Amino acid sequence: MTSGNEVRVLRAAERAAAVWKNGGGVTREIAAWPESAGTGAFEWRVSLADVAADGPFSGFPGIDRTLTLAEGAGMDLTVAGAHRLVDERYAPRHFAGDAPTDCRLLDGPVVNFNVMYRRDTTRAETAVVRGDLALAAAEPGETLLVVALDGPAVLEGAGAGPGETVELARYDAALAPAGLACRVRTEGRAAVVRFRPRGGGQV
Amino acid sequence: MTSGNEVRVLRAAERAAAVWKNGGGVTREIAAWPESAGTGAFEWRVSLADVAADGPFSGFPGIDRTLTLAEGAGMDLTVAGAHRLVDERYAPRHFAGDAPTDCRLLDGPVVNFNVMYRRDTTRAETAVVRGDLALAAAEPGETLLVVALDGPAVLEGAGAGPGETVELARYDAALAPAGLACRVRTEGRAAVVRFRPRGGGQV
Repeated sequence: MTSGNEVRVLRAAERAAAVWKNGGGVTREIAAWPESAGTGAFEWRVSLADVAADGPFSGFPGIDRTLTLAEGAGMDLTVAGAHRLVDERYAPRHFAGDAPTDCRLLDGPVVNFNVMYRRDTTRAETAVVRGDLALAAAEPGETLLVVALDGPAVLEGAGAGPGETVELARYDAALAPAGLACRVRTEGRAAVVRFRPRGGGQV
Repeated sequence: MTSGNEVRVLRAAERAAAVWKNGGGVTREIAAWPESAGTGAFEWRVSLADVAADGPFSGFPGIDRTLTLAEGAGMDLTVAGAHRLVDERYAPRHFAGDAPTDCRLLDGPVVNFNVMYRRDTTRAETAVVRGDLALAAAEPGETLLVVALDGPAVLEGAGAGPGETVELARYDAALAPAGLACRVRTEGRAAVVRFRPRGGGQV
């Protein structure tokens, strides 16, 4: 782990695939907090999930999730008995992680970008961006994560020196330290995820 | 004009349509600087342009532009003799404003979101975002503009009081004053445009 005033790059190629908690698919963890947390004990967790067959999603008690379709035609989800069609890529959608969710693939396998967070203690903001965007620096206690979802992305001002850049290939990610002003630039799409601890007044 | 620590909202319904400099289409100015500048004397200008027929774009000497297709199937542009296909909505694309540009509509009228800026003196960053995103506050001398391109958008923290929000309907815009930390939230798409004066070291 890099400390100090530089982003920490998390390369897609270095991720291990893990079977879903319920066995129905494969997930690749991008980042989680605490780092050693299992799928039952995280404050937040960001992952890419390959869904190759119809079936239920794993249940995550106390967890909210923001799901972004990243590859494939999409899913017809049944969430707590209600249909939710997810057929548009790169559009973040919010779900309760503990609602029983059944997934029917619309036309073949999909890849989902998943942001999960414990709703009582953590607030998560997920955006999908394209173009050239200055990112609000992370405050102490916040985590700012950038993930290239569709083609490469560049983080400018990403190092200790002025003008230093980091190039992210598809599905590479970067964690920006608190206080670092940086800019993301992509002709594709990048996810920008910010985690904040929920204060007493915000819950 | 609102001063102080609140956004200034620029409603779509209050815009007048103007004929293009070359007479070939209609444009609606969202914001420009200086405010009284004509189409030949601005530092920057943001507008929506209705293109209903094939033909040349107006030439803007010394101007760079970032064009984002907002409605319609798109355009086959010929820029300084080279083809550039613009057939994807909400994807910012950069052009030289002074290159002779001819437009052939692919399938009916389009609406373009145009960001133009004097390349010697101004730097412009344009992004299209969806989801929930904290915006880096404008620095003194910068201008930060948010435009709802596709459905409504909400600006949070947009006023003097904490939690104050502004709702933007489609094509409404908001200028954020320097130092104001705010957040944009939309299930559609919003443009985030930042103008910076070019310093001596940046040119």
